[in-house]
Amino acid sequence: MTKKPGNEMWGGRFAQGPDAIMEAINASIDFDKRLYREDIAGSMAHAAMLAENGIISAEDAAAIHKGLTEIRAEIEEGRFSFSREREDIHMNIEARLAELIGPAAGRLHTARSRNDQVAVDFRLYVKRALQELEAGLSAYMGALLARAQEHAATVMPGFTHLQAAQPVTFGHHCLAYVEMAGRDRSRVRDALRRMDESPLGAAALAGTGFPIDRHRTAQDLGFREPTRNSLDSVSDRDFAIEFLALAAMTAMHLSRLAEEIVIWSTPQFDFVRLSDAFSTGSSIMPQKKNPDAAELVRAKNGRINGGLVALLTVMKGLPLSYSKDMQEDKEQVFDAIDSLSLALSAMTGMVRDLEVNVARMRAAAGAGFSTATDLADFLVRGAGLPFREAHHVTGRVVALAESRKVALEDLPLEALQEIDERIGPEVFDVLSVDSSVASRKSFGGTAPDNVRQQVAYWQQRLSTGE
Amino acid sequence: MTKKPGNEMWGGRFAQGPDAIMEAINASIDFDKRLYREDIAGSMAHAAMLAENGIISAEDAAAIHKGLTEIRAEIEEGRFSFSREREDIHMNIEARLAELIGPAAGRLHTARSRNDQVAVDFRLYVKRALQELEAGLSAYMGALLARAQEHAATVMPGFTHLQAAQPVTFGHHCLAYVEMAGRDRSRVRDALRRMDESPLGAAALAGTGFPIDRHRTAQDLGFREPTRNSLDSVSDRDFAIEFLALAAMTAMHLSRLAEEIVIWSTPQFDFVRLSDAFSTGSSIMPQKKNPDAAELVRAKNGRINGGLVALLTVMKGLPLSYSKDMQEDKEQVFDAIDSLSLALSAMTGMVRDLEVNVARMRAAAGAGFSTATDLADFLVRGAGLPFREAHHVTGRVVALAESRKVALEDLPLEALQEIDERIGPEVFDVLSVDSSVASRKSFGGTAPDNVRQQVAYWQQRLSTGE
Amino acid sequence: MTKKPGNEMWGGRFAQGPDAIMEAINASIDFDKRLYREDIAGSMAHAAMLAENGIISAEDAAAIHKGLTEIRAEIEEGRFSFSREREDIHMNIEARLAELIGPAAGRLHTARSRNDQVAVDFRLYVKRALQELEAGLSAYMGALLARAQEHAATVMPGFTHLQAAQPVTFGHHCLAYVEMAGRDRSRVRDALRRMDESPLGAAALAGTGFPIDRHRTAQDLGFREPTRNSLDSVSDRDFAIEFLALAAMTAMHLSRLAEEIVIWSTPQFDFVRLSDAFSTGSSIMPQKKNPDAAELVRAKNGRINGGLVALLTVMKGLPLSYSKDMQEDKEQVFDAIDSLSLALSAMTGMVRDLEVNVARMRAAAGAGFSTATDLADFLVRGAGLPFREAHHVTGRVVALAESRKVALEDLPLEALQEIDERIGPEVFDVLSVDSSVASRKSFGGTAPDNVRQQVAYWQQRLSTGE
Amino acid sequence: MTKKPGNEMWGGRFAQGPDAIMEAINASIDFDKRLYREDIAGSMAHAAMLAENGIISAEDAAAIHKGLTEIRAEIEEGRFSFSREREDIHMNIEARLAELIGPAAGRLHTARSRNDQVAVDFRLYVKRALQELEAGLSAYMGALLARAQEHAATVMPGFTHLQAAQPVTFGHHCLAYVEMAGRDRSRVRDALRRMDESPLGAAALAGTGFPIDRHRTAQDLGFREPTRNSLDSVSDRDFAIEFLALAAMTAMHLSRLAEEIVIWSTPQFDFVRLSDAFSTGSSIMPQKKNPDAAELVRAKNGRINGGLVALLTVMKGLPLSYSKDMQEDKEQVFDAIDSLSLALSAMTGMVRDLEVNVARMRAAAGAGFSTATDLADFLVRGAGLPFREAHHVTGRVVALAESRKVALEDLPLEALQEIDERIGPEVFDVLSVDSSVASRKSFGGTAPDNVRQQVAYWQQRLSTGE
Repeated sequence: MTKKPGNEMWGGRFAQGPDAIMEAINASIDFDKRLYREDIAGSMAHAAMLAENGIISAEDAAAIHKGLTEIRAEIEEGRFSFSREREDIHMNIEARLAELIGPAAGRLHTARSRNDQVAVDFRLYVKRALQELEAGLSAYMGALLARAQEHAATVMPGFTHLQAAQPVTFGHHCLAYVEMAGRDRSRVRDALRRMDESPLGAAALAGTGFPIDRHRTAQDLGFREPTRNSLDSVSDRDFAIEFLALAAMTAMHLSRLAEEIVIWSTPQFDFVRLSDAFSTGSSIMPQKKNPDAAELVRAKNGRINGGLVALLTVMKGLPLSYSKDMQEDKEQVFDAIDSLSLALSAMTGMVRDLEVNVARMRAAAGAGFSTATDLADFLVRGAGLPFREAHHVTGRVVALAESRKVALEDLPLEALQEIDERIGPEVFDVLSVDSSVASRKSFGGTAPDNVRQQVAYWQQRLSTGE
Repeated sequence: MTKKPGNEMWGGRFAQGPDAIMEAINASIDFDKRLYREDIAGSMAHAAMLAENGIISAEDAAAIHKGLTEIRAEIEEGRFSFSREREDIHMNIEARLAELIGPAAGRLHTARSRNDQVAVDFRLYVKRALQELEAGLSAYMGALLARAQEHAATVMPGFTHLQAAQPVTFGHHCLAYVEMAGRDRSRVRDALRRMDESPLGAAALAGTGFPIDRHRTAQDLGFREPTRNSLDSVSDRDFAIEFLALAAMTAMHLSRLAEEIVIWSTPQFDFVRLSDAFSTGSSIMPQKKNPDAAELVRAKNGRINGGLVALLTVMKGLPLSYSKDMQEDKEQVFDAIDSLSLALSAMTGMVRDLEVNVARMRAAAGAGFSTATDLADFLVRGAGLPFREAHHVTGRVVALAESRKVALEDLPLEALQEIDERIGPEVFDVLSVDSSVASRKSFGGTAPDNVRQQVAYWQQRLSTGE
Repeated sequence: MTKKPGNEMWGGRFAQGPDAIMEAINASIDFDKRLYREDIAGSMAHAAMLAENGIISAEDAAAIHKGLTEIRAEIEEGRFSFSREREDIHMNIEARLAELIGPAAGRLHTARSRNDQVAVDFRLYVKRALQELEAGLSAYMGALLARAQEHAATVMPGFTHLQAAQPVTFGHHCLAYVEMAGRDRSRVRDALRRMDESPLGAAALAGTGFPIDRHRTAQDLGFREPTRNSLDSVSDRDFAIEFLALAAMTAMHLSRLAEEIVIWSTPQFDFVRLSDAFSTGSSIMPQKKNPDAAELVRAKNGRINGGLVALLTVMKGLPLSYSKDMQEDKEQVFDAIDSLSLALSAMTGMVRDLEVNVARMRAAAGAGFSTATDLADFLVRGAGLPFREAHHVTGRVVALAESRKVALEDLPLEALQEIDERIGPEVFDVLSVDSSVASRKSFGGTAPDNVRQQVAYWQQRLSTGE
Repeated sequence: MTKKPGNEMWGGRFAQGPDAIMEAINASIDFDKRLYREDIAGSMAHAAMLAENGIISAEDAAAIHKGLTEIRAEIEEGRFSFSREREDIHMNIEARLAELIGPAAGRLHTARSRNDQVAVDFRLYVKRALQELEAGLSAYMGALLARAQEHAATVMPGFTHLQAAQPVTFGHHCLAYVEMAGRDRSRVRDALRRMDESPLGAAALAGTGFPIDRHRTAQDLGFREPTRNSLDSVSDRDFAIEFLALAAMTAMHLSRLAEEIVIWSTPQFDFVRLSDAFSTGSSIMPQKKNPDAAELVRAKNGRINGGLVALLTVMKGLPLSYSKDMQEDKEQVFDAIDSLSLALSAMTGMVRDLEVNVARMRAAAGAGFSTATDLADFLVRGAGLPFREAHHVTGRVVALAESRKVALEDLPLEALQEIDERIGPEVFDVLSVDSSVASRKSFGGTAPDNVRQQVAYWQQRLSTGE
């Protein structure tokens, strides 16, 4: 008999009856199988500790270790048969272990419960995800730094309200994203440190009377220490929510650069060109280059925000300790890991491959009298005019350039002096976009030398892993 | 060589390079295969219309129809081989059609593009989901009405702040959820009517010069009419967001009843007992009955809220018309359908099976002098006391009952008259919980007769499909 | 002694002690004073009904009416002194009424409680907001239709992925937003109809034993009918959430147009110019025109999404009936009303005033061989080529134009025929952007005649209030 | 003529025209006046640095300092007249400064712009909020620790699924919340450290050519260092979002305890009694004690989640650098500060005042054979039974107790030995709730001695400010 997937959307449920509903509620194996490595590692550490402390025999511990090793191989080689009836990854592995080693499998559950088992598995997984995210962010920062170095002096418009305001350099612009990623990475590290505690041994919720050594299993699993309260250990999903929150912020940063790439890739801007690898084209419209990868990165932000809202909502008002509601935690985190991993990889690739249209950027930077504020500053600083007067003079100079349809730097000195005689020839040092950016040497400013110093600063930090 | 799934979490991406990243970005077949029925139906309608209007030949249309029929059978019988390289459900079907019928397959794309194709597929799917949700809500309302009828006179505490305030009946309580579900169903119907327009024929974004008949394909696919603007047709995901919004509200209503079931299932309340089918127990703690199904229902609310946030965020500030960002729409909707379907089925089953502890409810309703307001009202209405004075007298009566540790109705008449001589023997008509609920005959009040009338009202509406 | 506001941020709380905390928790007068009109109207209707049904005397009802009329005048003329000690608008008015008319004020509370009172007040307010939103959307649609009529034939690029794909008209683009606003308005109407029920008379939660006439007060207050379940009446905030959900979708639509205006206002696009009224400039950079109003409109979407999340989260898992949590409902709704009102007004004004740069739009529409798909369609339709072959020929034609750096329509016929001899002179009917848009006459397509018909269709609906 | 506030809801906007709309868009003074202290501090630091570096004269700097001091006094003494026409706090202060000290006021703007000014003001404010939140969390932890110490041995049910699972102590339960608050505090500290950088001197977006000393102003304002990239400095709102994210998590933790208090305050549970200060009663129903403060705390979680969503959504896809959208940041943060401050203060007060019903907790802990798992563990540990067999024996013992309607510890030894002769008299050491909790001495377990050690650990950390 063939199954008709088309009937499965909804109505089928009602025909299926309570058993099918409860199976659907309880079965998490479809998604929690991702935890197999962590589940096996946790069980190995637990069994070894039980034996060390005389709670189970050395023989049993050895058998358990051997059995789990075999199960891991089965899973990684695709030989393991997952069963929905066995509900979750823990039961799937446990049942298989019993098949492989017999009654000793049951002793693995001494001084442990499903509540602390799932807590330690999920923590181990999130911890690894955070470590990989840290590496991914470093790679992304490296890509940005390479482009920042290359374009330390490439002039482009600095925008406010998406209107050119003052010239900056493309390298400086890249460094802004390095700062964001640096904060993201710093949040990852803080989260890692905070969640680096093992809940294993909290048992169902109250701890246990067996003489277990939680510091031992914590150490074995690579945690700094065990958690300090058994109720909290099985009720806490902060590490998952904190991951989602920092992922949402990282995705938000990526979405900003993605939006810029989408806008800059239009023929109207034409500041950058994505490589073919990260865009799709039209066979009959050769100019059309759809920035699919950038759009995707932008969109992933919504998804991760949604995951954050989902888990915050699930945990709201939940009494201690474990409730079934908390089973909703894993899918949100897994989805955010997949989404952010993809977005970050794609953005790193785009940054690496991006073709920068230096001429277009420069032309756009020079349009719109974008050095007018430089002129005003010059009048204050160089010519000693009060601020208000300097502003007034600048307005007249711009009006003149506008009426003559020339750039500020193309006005003759005499014309400038006719407006205000205190203007000397050094004014031309500030009117070009190059001199404008070169002048902004305040700490954190856009001057090419500053950019190069900041690139060096961050490369140093990346190289030392700081 | 075996694949190590454990390496796939994150870091793998970077090693894979741009092609793998773009495949991951573009490939939607893993989730959009759920649209196969709708995609085939849309193509069949389109081909038939093209032939009717002389745009393709009748032979081609017949070949297309035959090929698509075969493909549908292949999919439903599990014989179809989905390919990630062919990206999505449209390409998978299209490529297979070309294998089956040759060049005629290409003519199917006349006057159509992927943009309107995916829009019509997804609308058809959401439309079906809404229709099934309407049926699911009706079944849920039916279950509530049956319990309301049965318990029209079962007295329980009416809570404010989770503190008993006035007696109500359990039937009346069930009817409150009928009202919520009735509004949910009404929102479903409004959404259905609003989205009942076919985008097919909008083509890429501008409409087409081919003499197509969009009213014909709309009719064929069961839509009321075609959409009126081609740009909007391919840019609009309102129907998906509106589905998520109404699903979130429905899930919120379910979460409220779920919370009540969790609280009422505690030994402390012991108002209801879930059937074994919807709870899990402990082999060594026979009283422990974990209300897993109710907790799951409660939690699904978070998930659907998250989906709503995700899609609202994705669509924010998206210029017209199609952008890749919009590919994020389907997974959120599919997940919400699965979650709400499961939650609604589970709650319907729980309501049907719920064992109501009438004695405990009644006892709780009578505690705490819950008819004190009835007494005050009686003094105003029956004995003609001004409101403030009635309140004062009531306070003294309650204090007396408290000091004697009896219920209000167990105070002797003389004791009452000592407090205020205007109190006559009719006072006992209002002091019991039964008389209290019986007295609340105002429209929508909790009197058992009212409850039965409202049950009849809603059963009539359900039976006529109104 | 002067108060130091700077100390009030946080720490002050702890010094203040429980009473100050509870006052802060309970006091809602700072925001719910907005409900004064509704509160007075509700009380007037209630008092009149009580007198009609002999529950209070006609004299009392008259005194109540007179007192409330006076209070309304005091508030509207700024003579009313609001008090935080009296917590909320209901208590402020009630206490003032007692000052004005004495003990009769107390009789107003017969057969009513704070729970149904706040429910009816808030419903009346949201109902009015929905009615005003409907009017606001109609005005916005009117502004869009005027521009659509004016620019029915103004050619601009139709974008996908923010890349020009096919030419459309600006009128057609405006109509896409009319469709969105039309759906928004339709959602407003559905919400209005659904929430048009009066909860007044549900009393605390159970109804009342007084012989009140809820149909009478419902009618008096302009509701279609009374609510059908007293528990639901005081527990339901669907009308608020539904308002927030439709407001979020409306704001999302506005954010899309806002984003387009921001992008189109850049010198790089230069498609439109905002009026001075809706932008800010720089005194020394005359070209810079910051689209502040558009940015603000875009941003308001986030805020309203937040309000929706807030209220959905508050209501999750709340047992029946009234809980203090529900006091959080009003601020979210008031804030969304203010935000959406401002955003919609601003966008209506921007649309009205927008200066359209027809020449720039047209030039952009013609760039990038945007009529290539028209050529391919022509080859299929006019010259009878199979689709695949047509596509191939088109590719060669475009390549030729690209190599010669001319537009498709500027290639000589001979050159075209050299590529494929089946191309006749009628090809030039499709190669220009004007002929391209004119050809797309399918229902909902961008042809100027279609646009004018759709404008007429919508103007007819607006004029009949349909 | 009197103003009718009732007409202002919505429609009024349209009548008002563009100017009123733009004023509403631009004016932020109604909420950003909260930044007055920070704005004045930032300006004082800036002026001092300008003088130190010879950019303005010492006289001007002195005049500026004197003027700002006077303005601060005016504001704090309520003598300052805020003006909506002057839009924001910066302009209000600036204009007043010009009135007070004349042209020197203008020199304050040298090498500064509104963009870095608002960034530094807002950072200073959020920094202070974080510092106060840290103090608030410490106070809350202190209150919990005091109750944990007092109730280190008070037995209560440990719940899973809100069903009693194993006995724990109330002190242990309090410590679970200490752990949560400890993580919250740790997140506050991380956020503080991360955001402790001064953006002042980033100027409009590019830095400045004036020889300013950003390290000097950073130090003066109490920041660790200046920010490293001028574009990021004016575009970054991470500190606000990170505050909202950690506030949402803190509020979520508070909502869990609030929910427990609401449930525990029911007559059915009767585990705790709120003090009168944190609840409201009914004059005629003396038992009714509405846990308003707890409900309010629970609800605030929704509001803060909403604020987080709002700002994440606003920032999504925003190109660099400043856009008007970012003006939406402050209200969300201010509202979250107010909400969290109130919720945390209220919860601290509730914890301090909570009356714990030790007898009820103990009775509930002992019901339902809650030490059955202790018996099973005993059989494994003490009597050497294999796990599965121990489980089986336990089931039989519980069944016996159930049939006899006695607690496990009230079964005679002979009856136990009849079931399994390996059971010795030491079994009674584990069957009582006291011995159960006393036995759970694993690290983090609920044994009273453990609880006291953890209290000491945390009190030590609090006392050293660690």
